[in-house]
Amino acid sequence: MTTFDCLTLLTDYGLDDGFVAACHGVTARIAPGVRMHVAVVDPGVGTARRGIALEAGDAILVGPDNGLLSWAAAALGGVRRAFQLTNGEFWLHPVSQTFHGRDIFVPVAAHLAAGADLLSVGTELDTGDLVTLPAPTSRVHDREAEGEVMSVDRFGNVQLSIAASDADRIGIGFGSQLVVRCGRRQLTVPYLETFAAVAPGELVAFTDSAGLISLAVNAGDAAQQLGLPPGAHVRLAAAPPA
Amino acid sequence: MTTFDCLTLLTDYGLDDGFVAACHGVTARIAPGVRMHVAVVDPGVGTARRGIALEAGDAILVGPDNGLLSWAAAALGGVRRAFQLTNGEFWLHPVSQTFHGRDIFVPVAAHLAAGADLLSVGTELDTGDLVTLPAPTSRVHDREAEGEVMSVDRFGNVQLSIAASDADRIGIGFGSQLVVRCGRRQLTVPYLETFAAVAPGELVAFTDSAGLISLAVNAGDAAQQLGLPPGAHVRLAAAPPA
Amino acid sequence: MTTFDCLTLLTDYGLDDGFVAACHGVTARIAPGVRMHVAVVDPGVGTARRGIALEAGDAILVGPDNGLLSWAAAALGGVRRAFQLTNGEFWLHPVSQTFHGRDIFVPVAAHLAAGADLLSVGTELDTGDLVTLPAPTSRVHDREAEGEVMSVDRFGNVQLSIAASDADRIGIGFGSQLVVRCGRRQLTVPYLETFAAVAPGELVAFTDSAGLISLAVNAGDAAQQLGLPPGAHVRLAAAPPA
Repeated sequence: MTTFDCLTLLTDYGLDDGFVAACHGVTARIAPGVRMHVAVVDPGVGTARRGIALEAGDAILVGPDNGLLSWAAAALGGVRRAFQLTNGEFWLHPVSQTFHGRDIFVPVAAHLAAGADLLSVGTELDTGDLVTLPAPTSRVHDREAEGEVMSVDRFGNVQLSIAASDADRIGIGFGSQLVVRCGRRQLTVPYLETFAAVAPGELVAFTDSAGLISLAVNAGDAAQQLGLPPGAHVRLAAAPPA
Repeated sequence: MTTFDCLTLLTDYGLDDGFVAACHGVTARIAPGVRMHVAVVDPGVGTARRGIALEAGDAILVGPDNGLLSWAAAALGGVRRAFQLTNGEFWLHPVSQTFHGRDIFVPVAAHLAAGADLLSVGTELDTGDLVTLPAPTSRVHDREAEGEVMSVDRFGNVQLSIAASDADRIGIGFGSQLVVRCGRRQLTVPYLETFAAVAPGELVAFTDSAGLISLAVNAGDAAQQLGLPPGAHVRLAAAPPA
Repeated sequence: MTTFDCLTLLTDYGLDDGFVAACHGVTARIAPGVRMHVAVVDPGVGTARRGIALEAGDAILVGPDNGLLSWAAAALGGVRRAFQLTNGEFWLHPVSQTFHGRDIFVPVAAHLAAGADLLSVGTELDTGDLVTLPAPTSRVHDREAEGEVMSVDRFGNVQLSIAASDADRIGIGFGSQLVVRCGRRQLTVPYLETFAAVAPGELVAFTDSAGLISLAVNAGDAAQQLGLPPGAHVRLAAAPPA
């Protein structure tokens, strides 16, 4: 058996989206590796918002208590235990008011990675007291699926908060025509297995790699063409038979 | 003897070009390391195009059979054996239609890195059946070298498909004046050892780090100034004596 | 004791600034790691400028002798020994004229990382002969602190070369109003503990994570709003009592 020490990844995914991170995750699952994410998107740094460490699934999440970690924790099966980062022995001093990534979150995470006990990072919190982000809107009624734009990736693909299973419930399957309503606009697009199933420049709906309905222009930028930023309200329905 | 565990690289190369990857390669050559590249530039993801693993030189290349790997394999001495990725045991399920990097290529590569036998990834292919990219145009005739723009790096340097050795064959050496023809335009530029040999803002031709003739503006953007995108047709000749 | 093999960092810092590097540094300090930086910002590549390796603090710095390493070496306590990279045995041949990162700096650094003696990279230099960058302007006189814009980060925060301790010397403390003069313009801004202490869209001065006075617009781009690029001259004073 030959083993390789190292694996490199050459992609055009860029670093603006989570694609490369997902690949790292897969690698780490098969060859031992990534156990911990330090999440830092922290516009309230230096204010009274708390730093937290969460135990969820087989992971520990470290970051600000501003809701950033809430979807990740939910996806891991929910928060089992939560701790406020109050033990300054794990921090980098002097602690700045504007770069807690460097001074608090990463050092705490590194100490945990080096074997420190989760209980030692600070005082335990009631998990019900954590700040959570509202779940994205998504509901099905009257044979219509309603949701919002979850994200736009660097190719301009528009990911909706509508699951493929919800599309299925309102009678949309591969090969159907789909009516997309956003604001006053209404478009009819084919629902197919992949964006590459239509000609370059054509609009298409497909189930993306997260199991969500996405809108794309093959070899083009759907977000720009449709003017659909994250958060935009979108409704889907099966097109009436021609 | 002191050894270091780790080496970090601080550069202004950016991540848009292969520069950082080349540095990783050098590091891996001297301290053991990188043995495998997973290449993902895959506009046909989810269509009938095949996934492949290629043995070439002392490397294994994993990616889509769309020609992406063909130049790399040629540079490694050619494909020795080729396999279609048909063994789903190595994949991440459910396999999406749009993110085979995550679901097929990286997991297969990680399994190979962890010691799996290349024969186990799928069925062997006739190497003659692989999709290849056409080699870039380059020919010398009538004391003129003809080629195309291979790439434009993030500094705006324009790399031609004309080797320094071909320039030599038509009488162009360091210190010569060079006539560059593209479309109806004709420019005379000095051919020197490096872009920094001319004053800032000046145009220059030089042999780049891949042994190819490149056009640059010292501290400027040659591609923008000359309007030369990848694929543009270019001819070079020695300038007549003044 | 549980140990983790690996730690990943999810941030919105981007890769345009030194934030991610700082986090790597912290990780490496706590779990063993980063010992060496290869610095490549090298517009004079291929000219007569020398390649150097510097011993400073417990680090070795490798790069061009164009001043790039001088501030880093000073921050590490000054250069103890300096060597010109003249030993071609450590280089990658053929050495290009335009990519010494790949051909000289990284291979030399990798050899050092693999245990080579610093004395073997080349001939020792007089440390007084090294090229140094001029230190950024910063002086205090007449109850005014004078400096320049050191950097603008990807959020548009404007870092000045004026230390918080200098602000203190001219009577500026948290909660003060600050008069900022740049060119003919004059602004009065509050000096607070963090940018998040003002309402979104409001201008604020604060002590940044490097101990320097910075100007920010909470949830906005101060550099763009104020028109302050790196190098711009700025003066600060305490606002007269209202």
